[in-house]
Amino acid sequence: MIPLSTKRHSLAHIMAQAVKQNFPDAKIATGPDTEDGFYYDFDFWDTEFSDKDLKIIEKTMKKIISQNQDFKTFEVNFDEARDILAQMDEEFKCELVDKIESGDMKNTLPPTPLLTKEGEMSGANGGGPISFYFNVAKGKSNNEDVQNFLAQKSFETFEELDGDQVKTLKFIDMCTGPHVENTRELDANSFKLARVAGAYWLGDADNKQLTRIYAYAFHNKEELDAHLKMLEEAKKRDHRVLGKKLDLFCFSDYVWPGLPLFTPAGVVIRDELQNHIEGVCRKYGFEKVCTPHLSKIDLFKCSGHAYKFSDELFHVGSGHGHEFVLKPVQCPHHTQIYASNPRSYRDLPFRYMESEKQYRAEQSGEVGGLSRVYAITVEDGHVFCRVDQIKDEIINLIHIIREFYTALGMWDKVWVSLSVRDYSNLDNYIGEESDWNVAENMLAEISDELWLDAKRCEWEAALYGPKLDFMFKDATGREIQIPTVQLDFATPQRFELSYKDSNGEDVTPVMIHRAILGSYERFMMLLIEHFAGTFPLWLAPRQVRVIPVAEKFDDYAKKVEQELKAEGFRVAGDYSNDGLNKKVRNAEKMHVNYILVVGEEEQNTSTVSVRDYKTKEQTSENLQDFKQRILEEYREKRL
Amino acid sequence: MIPLSTKRHSLAHIMAQAVKQNFPDAKIATGPDTEDGFYYDFDFWDTEFSDKDLKIIEKTMKKIISQNQDFKTFEVNFDEARDILAQMDEEFKCELVDKIESGDMKNTLPPTPLLTKEGEMSGANGGGPISFYFNVAKGKSNNEDVQNFLAQKSFETFEELDGDQVKTLKFIDMCTGPHVENTRELDANSFKLARVAGAYWLGDADNKQLTRIYAYAFHNKEELDAHLKMLEEAKKRDHRVLGKKLDLFCFSDYVWPGLPLFTPAGVVIRDELQNHIEGVCRKYGFEKVCTPHLSKIDLFKCSGHAYKFSDELFHVGSGHGHEFVLKPVQCPHHTQIYASNPRSYRDLPFRYMESEKQYRAEQSGEVGGLSRVYAITVEDGHVFCRVDQIKDEIINLIHIIREFYTALGMWDKVWVSLSVRDYSNLDNYIGEESDWNVAENMLAEISDELWLDAKRCEWEAALYGPKLDFMFKDATGREIQIPTVQLDFATPQRFELSYKDSNGEDVTPVMIHRAILGSYERFMMLLIEHFAGTFPLWLAPRQVRVIPVAEKFDDYAKKVEQELKAEGFRVAGDYSNDGLNKKVRNAEKMHVNYILVVGEEEQNTSTVSVRDYKTKEQTSENLQDFKQRILEEYREKRL
Repeated sequence: MIPLSTKRHSLAHIMAQAVKQNFPDAKIATGPDTEDGFYYDFDFWDTEFSDKDLKIIEKTMKKIISQNQDFKTFEVNFDEARDILAQMDEEFKCELVDKIESGDMKNTLPPTPLLTKEGEMSGANGGGPISFYFNVAKGKSNNEDVQNFLAQKSFETFEELDGDQVKTLKFIDMCTGPHVENTRELDANSFKLARVAGAYWLGDADNKQLTRIYAYAFHNKEELDAHLKMLEEAKKRDHRVLGKKLDLFCFSDYVWPGLPLFTPAGVVIRDELQNHIEGVCRKYGFEKVCTPHLSKIDLFKCSGHAYKFSDELFHVGSGHGHEFVLKPVQCPHHTQIYASNPRSYRDLPFRYMESEKQYRAEQSGEVGGLSRVYAITVEDGHVFCRVDQIKDEIINLIHIIREFYTALGMWDKVWVSLSVRDYSNLDNYIGEESDWNVAENMLAEISDELWLDAKRCEWEAALYGPKLDFMFKDATGREIQIPTVQLDFATPQRFELSYKDSNGEDVTPVMIHRAILGSYERFMMLLIEHFAGTFPLWLAPRQVRVIPVAEKFDDYAKKVEQELKAEGFRVAGDYSNDGLNKKVRNAEKMHVNYILVVGEEEQNTSTVSVRDYKTKEQTSENLQDFKQRILEEYREKRL
Repeated sequence: MIPLSTKRHSLAHIMAQAVKQNFPDAKIATGPDTEDGFYYDFDFWDTEFSDKDLKIIEKTMKKIISQNQDFKTFEVNFDEARDILAQMDEEFKCELVDKIESGDMKNTLPPTPLLTKEGEMSGANGGGPISFYFNVAKGKSNNEDVQNFLAQKSFETFEELDGDQVKTLKFIDMCTGPHVENTRELDANSFKLARVAGAYWLGDADNKQLTRIYAYAFHNKEELDAHLKMLEEAKKRDHRVLGKKLDLFCFSDYVWPGLPLFTPAGVVIRDELQNHIEGVCRKYGFEKVCTPHLSKIDLFKCSGHAYKFSDELFHVGSGHGHEFVLKPVQCPHHTQIYASNPRSYRDLPFRYMESEKQYRAEQSGEVGGLSRVYAITVEDGHVFCRVDQIKDEIINLIHIIREFYTALGMWDKVWVSLSVRDYSNLDNYIGEESDWNVAENMLAEISDELWLDAKRCEWEAALYGPKLDFMFKDATGREIQIPTVQLDFATPQRFELSYKDSNGEDVTPVMIHRAILGSYERFMMLLIEHFAGTFPLWLAPRQVRVIPVAEKFDDYAKKVEQELKAEGFRVAGDYSNDGLNKKVRNAEKMHVNYILVVGEEEQNTSTVSVRDYKTKEQTSENLQDFKQRILEEYREKRL
């Protein structure tokens, strides 16, 4: 079976050919395959190209596929490549050849087929070779003929080739391939052009802005349709849409578009998450600390973050001559709490946790959402322990991760990466090799003991130690990589942390970094989309709405409301003049978990008529039974 | 009875006289009475004066008192005053006359007897009069004689006066008085010189630094001793000392001396306070919101805080060209949550609360404490309501204040200020006069209805509305002014907030600012000192310590520990090799509320031997009974 990536990239060439047919002046840049299709970047000069032009391109593509064009390839050296591209007047491709030759591609180019899977430039050794792929119509071409042709002719018009079996050169592109052999191997109904977006040449905002055409592509129409349906579903789950609809957070131009303000309903979710994670962590010996957002830069110079995050640091000054930075991470602050008292081997381990905002001056991302914001509230934690305690501590942390994600119904879809060094470059890592060997073996042992079946991933270790990374899938099938347990031999040394061992000698402790839910902002985004805004009762900001069918049942409704409120439920009554149907619709609009309608019968029998928003089931229940039932649902954090 | 302030200020003159006798070159500046005594500022030039010189001054003062000197007074005009002071070579006093004449005293001078109670300069009308007080030995002086003498003689040597009953001019000072008539009215054992400190002339850091001598003074020795004992007690309660000893917070030079880091024990107190206040407020309809620390300055320009706090604003920038400030208050952020959705009269009131850090670049204060820090975590709250809801909302807020302070045992010592306008300057206030009248009357009505007996304090209103301020006394007798309820007609207008009334018209809501515990940092400081580090069980970071009398009872001790932990108690076991007495001492050092000692008998009878740290009582109790008892103590927040 032909790999999907090959089909996708072949379709990208076909799209470029279709664009060239309809817009002969358009210049091509790069066009790789993506996770769910492909894109190609074009320079349309002064010609306007928008979503409405996608239909015609799509139609042309289908026609090209039906022409049974061959994909053929040849190789040339750098100078020959430049000659060919210059003749074709493809300035972006020419620049690429220069970059490939000078070897500075890896850092400037977004992933394209020109890069092999290992991130190496194909044909970038010495003088080439550089490969080209081209399409020819009807039958097979003779490579030699084509190359002769390429050496002699102008490419502006894509004229006919000489040679018996070669009729027309339809499209040519510098590219490492691979491609299908003939367009008949592609399903004309397996792709769909998605949208047009702006994209800077080589991803650099200082370069020209090009037009990127995105497309979805799969093996066949069924797979494509399934994907489009999934996207439709994801759109309904979009946290920006649901965040606004359910009034979970908002933005103000007075404040800044990248700084969300959490409304009461949003804070309920945040607080429940925080109480839950802190409760779990406390059970496993974590203690909460609280540190300021400001610090002298010295703290982050010592930890190294001042250099790692130099571009993202917010600098703070005042009229009184203060010079501070906002913390981009909180590990260094926690070292200072450890350092605030002399420590003995008998006191270790110390397990600190903190949920505080960190600030990073990142480039602005999407507006109106939580995925890229300047203020991220990180649920952070660090263990300071002796080397002989590492194993127990890591097992302890894995228990926390398991308990937390089990409660969210995600643990059964986990896979674990044991992220170790690049063994061909051991000098790149901080710390003693013997410590590293012990630590890596220990993590492997733990994986075996706890049946984690961790996949050993080389290159993935942190600079300062190996780690275990946990990967989950959310309801839309998207992979979530948040929890991590990282060994760190370096930071305690940098801050000269120590404890007295049983002989009274000073020893440096080990630091273990751990993330469970990561940042509340990102986690809330994931939860909103995972649950499509219909939260389990324990997380739901609006748990119960009581609706009297007429004003004369307001008293009974209020009694019901009060009784549930007394148990701590987030309940509201709707005593407006709206009709019953409108009241129910209003409650449903806000995804209220339980809508209780009460009238004469309910009042006389001390019952409530329950509408379950999630299951859409309607039942009549004794008020006390209902209360007891949802109390259990809440306390057990049922999904 | 002679007022204490008169005695204190008379003692200040006597101290100045004693200093002059011992240090003839010393120049006098100002010397007012204080809350618990008096001080006087001197310029000793090159002579060193330190705490060890206080004894000799005190001795000389007692001698002066025993001489039965008369205090006499006369008045002169500005020029005459300058003449006299120039002859005496008292440069600071000369400068004072200039300042009094030019009328710029009120803003530059610290409170001194030269200012009357009303803050007006005495004798500052036109050309005087300026009053002088002087001391003469043995018998009464003839004022006329003295004035003649003053007009003729040099004051450098304080030579003998002419006249029958006047023997010696001992000391003379420009001063508004009043003073005692004769030093025999003062008790030589009623005062004590306290300490020497630096103080800038006129309180301005650009001026010369003078030497300030502080003293305590009361009517008699008994009162003085009681005060000294109270100070001794306060020293033991000092939150800086207890904060270090009980490991509640710490500081790091890497971070900044004015930015406390809260350790696990400190966070327990903070979190319990936060849970308590949020629980109370939630009961009265408050909802929690969460806003970032960063904002464009535009937010605070609109609110006016950018101007009010211009010196204290922290400015934030990044390499990406961002320009933000750190929020010095959070009211403006809350207006933006209100503004994030269209509001109807039926939705009001909105009650938002938030406990977040605010940052103000204040001048550095004491180091190692919580009283003046850059980061203050304010428990802030705002109500947005209709005018017809103000009264109910304010009553609601007073219920919150009452409930919160009752739980801390402070409500019975409350007094309330109804802070209204300065009626002679009504133009100084923002908003409609009719609104103000309604609001002030409403607050008075509420005070009557709730039996608050509020004291009407003119001048004390905020710029934007009248307020109720609540004053408490802590265990050391110190007055605490934290809770406040402030009406604000202006801010909602500045941000153009609105709601639709029943006719569909846009109406501006009223904003009510409320503080209950103020900032956690300051409140923790107060609580640490109020409880002298021995917290009620619900606030205590270390509630129970279990101590086995020997290793073979470790298992039973761990069972006790686990059983209490399961109920959520903050309990630890001491399984070290230390002896029993040392273990108990260690627990007492950390003010652990209950120390449970367990051995053979306890194990056999499922009991615990309980030492109550606060009462020092020792009892033997069934473990279940003990658990039940302290569960109740915890849940009821007993003091």
